[in-house]
Amino acid sequence: MSLSIYKAAENKGVLLPVPPMAGGNYNPVQLRGNIGYVAIQFPIQETIFTHQGKLGQEFTTEDGYQAMRLCALNVLAQINEYVTMDRLEGINHITAYYRSAENWDEAPSIVNGASDLFKQILDTKGEHSRSLLGVHALPKNFSVGLTVTFTFQN
Amino acid sequence: MSLSIYKAAENKGVLLPVPPMAGGNYNPVQLRGNIGYVAIQFPIQETIFTHQGKLGQEFTTEDGYQAMRLCALNVLAQINEYVTMDRLEGINHITAYYRSAENWDEAPSIVNGASDLFKQILDTKGEHSRSLLGVHALPKNFSVGLTVTFTFQN
Amino acid sequence: MSLSIYKAAENKGVLLPVPPMAGGNYNPVQLRGNIGYVAIQFPIQETIFTHQGKLGQEFTTEDGYQAMRLCALNVLAQINEYVTMDRLEGINHITAYYRSAENWDEAPSIVNGASDLFKQILDTKGEHSRSLLGVHALPKNFSVGLTVTFTFQN
Repeated sequence: MSLSIYKAAENKGVLLPVPPMAGGNYNPVQLRGNIGYVAIQFPIQETIFTHQGKLGQEFTTEDGYQAMRLCALNVLAQINEYVTMDRLEGINHITAYYRSAENWDEAPSIVNGASDLFKQILDTKGEHSRSLLGVHALPKNFSVGLTVTFTFQN
Repeated sequence: MSLSIYKAAENKGVLLPVPPMAGGNYNPVQLRGNIGYVAIQFPIQETIFTHQGKLGQEFTTEDGYQAMRLCALNVLAQINEYVTMDRLEGINHITAYYRSAENWDEAPSIVNGASDLFKQILDTKGEHSRSLLGVHALPKNFSVGLTVTFTFQN
Repeated sequence: MSLSIYKAAENKGVLLPVPPMAGGNYNPVQLRGNIGYVAIQFPIQETIFTHQGKLGQEFTTEDGYQAMRLCALNVLAQINEYVTMDRLEGINHITAYYRSAENWDEAPSIVNGASDLFKQILDTKGEHSRSLLGVHALPKNFSVGLTVTFTFQN
């Protein structure tokens, strides 16, 4: 029997949250061909918005690391609804968005919160390339957001 | 004979615009493997720039919905130049960019302008995941922009 | 024997730089299926940060063109580590990020610095679609950044 993403995380001592519902007329995950596209995930812990504000203002770099990790947990929770570990070929690329005060310049450190988690839970299947960019705005004043694609076997 | 995207839209009572020309040294649509990549589309109606300014300032949320819908119409007009309905497997993911005033927070509502249109015209082939982010700037002061990928059969 | 990307560039009189190292816990290029995902590249010339500041303020449009070209050179240097010319099917899509002063509106011109280079070095394999967006912040105050995907044969 195939291992779920949820169980794979649990085996590493990590409990995946309930995946947040879509905030509009779209799918949380879209599968086409052999690629899965995960809708942008925010720092939401079981319907609670945990990080609303700016890095370097309301939030420290360590807060940002945890916020990005929570986005990544939600990504895994979404993927868990669609594929199992043996069907997951791996994460492709992650794009991290952040909102920051003028003099804050620790973006790579916070995005490691997502990168570290993917590699911790998925091992080599968690390896990925990434982009990161400081945005002007995100819905609900969220401090960070995360978009991910992955490859899977039918 | 295969149905064009144009005709599929017309059958739903929607007239696709003339697809805008590329504003630089790139292709409006790039096909590679089984994926099509659509260059960023803006709210342009037959060469007229319809939405230049910020949401929550020059434009209301309803304006933004129409602006995103127009971007999506341009996306379909571009796809129409390359594939027909039977070759289109479906939309993968859409990324929506918006420019907004400080206290405006209705981004998901405007992005539904694109999401609703894709599902209206393409039914299940229009389903997709999505990202949305508030940007600092877009060319020509456009209020919104839209990037889309799709999967097709050769 | 297969031609390297490096050699293909050299044949056009262009010397690829040493590819910048990853600035975090990710891969500079991730290959999955038949698609390669290149991590965001910045204007870095052999460890020197060449363009830190805003377009229309510290940098002119011509500077921006060169900055985007340098990002594209780094993209090719990264791809060169993974595939050769005969395995490269082509560039898919490029996403260009820029930081700009309020009244500067020449983004398509600077992004041509990347688009022109890809077509110069790779000919039809360098053709692509593209997106461009003005961001609030990039790491290290970089003026521009570039994310690219490509398709290859195994």
